Amino acid sequence: MNAEKLILEGNRVADSIKGKLMDRITKLSKKGIVPCLATILVGENPSSKTYVRMKGNACRRLGMKSIRIDLPADITTDELLSQIHKLNHDPAVHGILLQHPVPHHIDERTAFDAISIEKDVDGVTTLGYALNAFGAAKFPSCTPAAIMAILEYYELQVEGKHAVVIGRSPILGKPVSAMLLNKNATVTTCHSRTINLEDIVRLGDIVVAAVGKPNFVRGDWIKPGAVVLDAGYNEGNIGDVDFNECLQDAYAITPVPAGVGPVTIATLLKHTVDAAERSLNS
Amino acid sequence: MNAEKLILEGNRVADSIKGKLMDRITKLSKKGIVPCLATILVGENPSSKTYVRMKGNACRRLGMKSIRIDLPADITTDELLSQIHKLNHDPAVHGILLQHPVPHHIDERTAFDAISIEKDVDGVTTLGYALNAFGAAKFPSCTPAAIMAILEYYELQVEGKHAVVIGRSPILGKPVSAMLLNKNATVTTCHSRTINLEDIVRLGDIVVAAVGKPNFVRGDWIKPGAVVLDAGYNEGNIGDVDFNECLQDAYAITPVPAGVGPVTIATLLKHTVDAAERSLNS
Repeated sequence: MNAEKLILEGNRVADSIKGKLMDRITKLSKKGIVPCLATILVGENPSSKTYVRMKGNACRRLGMKSIRIDLPADITTDELLSQIHKLNHDPAVHGILLQHPVPHHIDERTAFDAISIEKDVDGVTTLGYALNAFGAAKFPSCTPAAIMAILEYYELQVEGKHAVVIGRSPILGKPVSAMLLNKNATVTTCHSRTINLEDIVRLGDIVVAAVGKPNFVRGDWIKPGAVVLDAGYNEGNIGDVDFNECLQDAYAITPVPAGVGPVTIATLLKHTVDAAERSLNS
Repeated sequence: MNAEKLILEGNRVADSIKGKLMDRITKLSKKGIVPCLATILVGENPSSKTYVRMKGNACRRLGMKSIRIDLPADITTDELLSQIHKLNHDPAVHGILLQHPVPHHIDERTAFDAISIEKDVDGVTTLGYALNAFGAAKFPSCTPAAIMAILEYYELQVEGKHAVVIGRSPILGKPVSAMLLNKNATVTTCHSRTINLEDIVRLGDIVVAAVGKPNFVRGDWIKPGAVVLDAGYNEGNIGDVDFNECLQDAYAITPVPAGVGPVTIATLLKHTVDAAERSLNS
């Protein structure tokens, strides 16, 4: 029915990334090192709990270590910072992930920036953001990096294309705009105050949806032949893109689930292995 | 002939910025503090010499201090860094400006990043870049800040407008894109690899030219009613925008000279005064 359509299968991309990690993990283990990701979860948000569990399981399946730190929702920013400092100084921990979002009374930006740049495998620090924008990041944010990995895996051209990013968060819309720009796309960043959003999206050869609203991007917003990447993940496994509608005119499209999500997790594992290797050389 | 056109006069905006500094400088001097900008010039580039001289003169005219450090073109990166470190530790110096560009054998990025964030009045550090992108910079890059100041002075709406930035340098195209985005413009960033540049520029309600090519932006690229800001400054006092051509369809436009240039210098002075005041409180 849609034989000419390219469904961008996140699990294939993720397997390709993870496949290349096996040897590296084995080599590290011969040197007595098990790449270790510490995840911090503050409070009881059910989606966050699921994400953290998925990340931990993914680590263990590859023979990596995962430490999970669960903190009560009423923890103070200072208490959270002291946990992060402990992990920064623990040589057995190579990557630190603070699950977003944290409860409102916590200063998330300060907490993110407390993560040592060597262990910021989720790419959330302010400095990491700028290094990424300058094309020099150790660890770009995982979801933007996953989007770039999908484009690369399927050999979809970025250079010279007009990419339209819907969303401007510091860990998704802004860094993915920067990464597309660094790959020589012409990049338009849209957001909640954009006027005539549909018309702008319709300019996109590449469309990245990072809005956080279920089925927000509609079929008639898509330029025929566009590549559509859905970074949304809303309740009930629903993306930001109306998949069935957008499939009609798109040339290639990520589904939700099994699109960007698994590649994000694979990217996080890769960054943790990178960090473990670097810890050897430092 | 062009009575309905708004010429964005940089000197008026600059005077408004400088006018507000007088009282602040007087107050500081009563506390024994003279805001001081140190400029570092490496080599003999004639344009750079002119810029540095203009900046020094502008300081002195306002009763501020200016220290000029001229270094030979064959200085090493390490020697430059040690000069910067000296200035970082000198309490009488409030702002440090390393004149761009430095000779090719010097690692400009490392030199920029050696400038203490408290004294980075020109907004060139990597960390300063990210803080600016997050809307939290002490000192955004001066030319992007000057462009925003012109838009504000003339009460030109940014929110909801489509801004097209031509150029993606770390001290101009990228930060001005970020600042326009933070003011709720929809922002498209173009560059040398952009396909159909004219068509993209023609989408812009606001056009920022930061290319470094004389008279590069032509009249028929401009959407009727657009606001055109020329951050270019090429040999012979020529901007990146063909002023006479673009004047026809633009609603408002900056000339070159006497457009963005003087506002950039006024912004640098303002940042230096800001830094001097902060040094009091730290």
